[in-house]
Amino acid sequence: MKNVIVGQSGGPSSVINSSLAGVYCRAKELGADKVYGMRNGIQGFLDERLVDLGEILKSEAEVEMLKKTPAAFLGSCRFKLPDAEKKPEVFEKIFALLNKYEIKVFIYIGGNDSMDTIRKLADYGLATGSEIRFVGAPKTIDNDLAETDHTPGFGSAAKFIATMAKEAIRDEVVYSTNRTIYVMEIMGRNAGWLTAAAALARGEDNPGPDLIYLPEVPFDMNAFLEKVGALLKKKNNIMIAVSEGIHDDKGTFICEYAAADKAVDAFGHKQMGGTATYLCSVCEEKFGCKTRAIELSTLQRCAAHLASQTDVDEAFASGAKAVEAALSGRTALMATLNRAGEDPYRCEIDLADVHYISNVERLVPREWISEDGDDVTEDFVRYALPLIQGESWPVMENGLPKHLVLK
Amino acid sequence: MKNVIVGQSGGPSSVINSSLAGVYCRAKELGADKVYGMRNGIQGFLDERLVDLGEILKSEAEVEMLKKTPAAFLGSCRFKLPDAEKKPEVFEKIFALLNKYEIKVFIYIGGNDSMDTIRKLADYGLATGSEIRFVGAPKTIDNDLAETDHTPGFGSAAKFIATMAKEAIRDEVVYSTNRTIYVMEIMGRNAGWLTAAAALARGEDNPGPDLIYLPEVPFDMNAFLEKVGALLKKKNNIMIAVSEGIHDDKGTFICEYAAADKAVDAFGHKQMGGTATYLCSVCEEKFGCKTRAIELSTLQRCAAHLASQTDVDEAFASGAKAVEAALSGRTALMATLNRAGEDPYRCEIDLADVHYISNVERLVPREWISEDGDDVTEDFVRYALPLIQGESWPVMENGLPKHLVLK
Repeated sequence: MKNVIVGQSGGPSSVINSSLAGVYCRAKELGADKVYGMRNGIQGFLDERLVDLGEILKSEAEVEMLKKTPAAFLGSCRFKLPDAEKKPEVFEKIFALLNKYEIKVFIYIGGNDSMDTIRKLADYGLATGSEIRFVGAPKTIDNDLAETDHTPGFGSAAKFIATMAKEAIRDEVVYSTNRTIYVMEIMGRNAGWLTAAAALARGEDNPGPDLIYLPEVPFDMNAFLEKVGALLKKKNNIMIAVSEGIHDDKGTFICEYAAADKAVDAFGHKQMGGTATYLCSVCEEKFGCKTRAIELSTLQRCAAHLASQTDVDEAFASGAKAVEAALSGRTALMATLNRAGEDPYRCEIDLADVHYISNVERLVPREWISEDGDDVTEDFVRYALPLIQGESWPVMENGLPKHLVLK
Repeated sequence: MKNVIVGQSGGPSSVINSSLAGVYCRAKELGADKVYGMRNGIQGFLDERLVDLGEILKSEAEVEMLKKTPAAFLGSCRFKLPDAEKKPEVFEKIFALLNKYEIKVFIYIGGNDSMDTIRKLADYGLATGSEIRFVGAPKTIDNDLAETDHTPGFGSAAKFIATMAKEAIRDEVVYSTNRTIYVMEIMGRNAGWLTAAAALARGEDNPGPDLIYLPEVPFDMNAFLEKVGALLKKKNNIMIAVSEGIHDDKGTFICEYAAADKAVDAFGHKQMGGTATYLCSVCEEKFGCKTRAIELSTLQRCAAHLASQTDVDEAFASGAKAVEAALSGRTALMATLNRAGEDPYRCEIDLADVHYISNVERLVPREWISEDGDDVTEDFVRYALPLIQGESWPVMENGLPKHLVLK
């Protein structure tokens, strides 16, 4: 009797299901009886919404398609587990359910909040003498988890962002005769890893973005406008990459200025606007030229059709490592990705104490950002480039990617 | 002495360079001496900014990479050729330059306006007894050219749109527990072909968009809100695809309502907003739930990494056909794509009189749109599906698509 349960939580990524496949395959290899999936994370588990993954992943082909399907196969949730002292009844219910289904191993694939869930459950388990083991598998496009060199999901999002930046810049330069400012808005409220990835577009065949602004450095509107003005004297088409989370030195998000005096339309409805749209409006007014805001929106976290094979493989391996550790009796850990070699790049999967991970946010080091705060350095490029290598082209059917879906 | 010149004009597409490759390769096969490219279309030609394509496309590998490079390789322009009666000096200059470079064949790859250029030059040539031949090769993601079943560029844009819709819907359903309305804004000011392509996302593994609004049918805000309200009673996540050009029965673009009372921000700058953002704000206010606007922006016209092989091949063939016709002495034509077979799909490249094409806009037939105007019919799906078939994966280098670029 060695049942395993696995859940997915937090925001989607292109490879979160490759981690799930890793958990499933390794658990089976190591002799687990049943591998349950919880639908919509811990929230669904509390409602006993379980599936038997063995009944779904019947062949190698289904496992392969799962690895190439974006967004949480099992569904996700944003459920913050309370503290055990404050609401012991939640923990009692969870452990009662785990015992009911004879589960010995609990794996949670997710980011910061999910590791907080692992930490709380593992600590409660240890305190109550339970033999159930809790281990996390990392997942976040934001790349902001501590104790790991990078996170599964980041490489694929970075590959999509750099590709779209490359293609969008190709698109813009065809009109070399008209002045236009493009602002590409990229996810990242506090950490600028994803926005920095736009720098990867640079190469012999592409100039890449002209300016890159991360949330790690306060955004100075006047300095920004000066830079853009200087660039417009040299070239007609300017591409600026910005994190959605850029803010000024008072800590006010730039997009909040856009919303400061929300417009009311002809019907009396309030307007909304993002960071890129706002910067475009500021530039349009200042320079009187055409602008275009490009928001990568949710596309950047689900574009599995352009996933990085390195990322897919590492996600799988980290899921496998997590379940392996738990099955061997370890708890309160998260699988980590350690850079074991630079040239050639080599990644070893390791484990770290989840207490050092939950609720910690890893930002882009200041020294990887240019002094003026408007670009990233070569150090960042050297760091990120190995993570986007290799193509994991989707299973195509009738001209479109085919996904494995839980009915 | 049989020199050819080719130019690209109007908006970019993923396969506009495959048409260019088709012109170049067929011209060389048929014994053309030099094949010139004009930089930035007719505008660059007037400045004698020519390149000798034979010096650039030296090997098969370069031709293949050209076919997979998005956006006009030669650069584009938005230059409206005046009427010959009004400004004969422009035509005199163009023909003098054509004679100077001993050019007998002039090929222009583009949409409506480009075909207007071909028409005017061909008519002027015929009226003045010139032997120079002018033929157009179709190009537009908008799919709105007359006399052709579809246009090169549409299939690849449709494939990207349907793929992103599929992936974005996968992304949204992971939170089945929260109510969210997604609005995806797709290009198309007057013609809804591209927005209709979102319907292709539907399949066994994806529900596709819940509502689809094209500019061909006036948009009724009250009916829209009623539909959304009814959908919210049945499901938590709703995906709505809208053309940027939807307008009400008075002809006012919906995005104009957003701009009606433009907000002024904390710095006194004016706000901007798109159709999707506007509909999101209306829905947010009406239903009090989360919304997210997804604008595909320029990404949809340059995402060559997801080009349709059918589209790439047809673009090449139409470029080849255009130069073949011109070299055989014909003029005032455009290459067309005729659907010669349904099952299996078969496309024949033909020619049509450019006088019937320039300045005509082909819209989605009313009978391919649902009666309520909030979806497309199976007829549209049958029409579009063959056009997205086949993958033209990019040449990858260091994890990213590699493009051929004119220095």
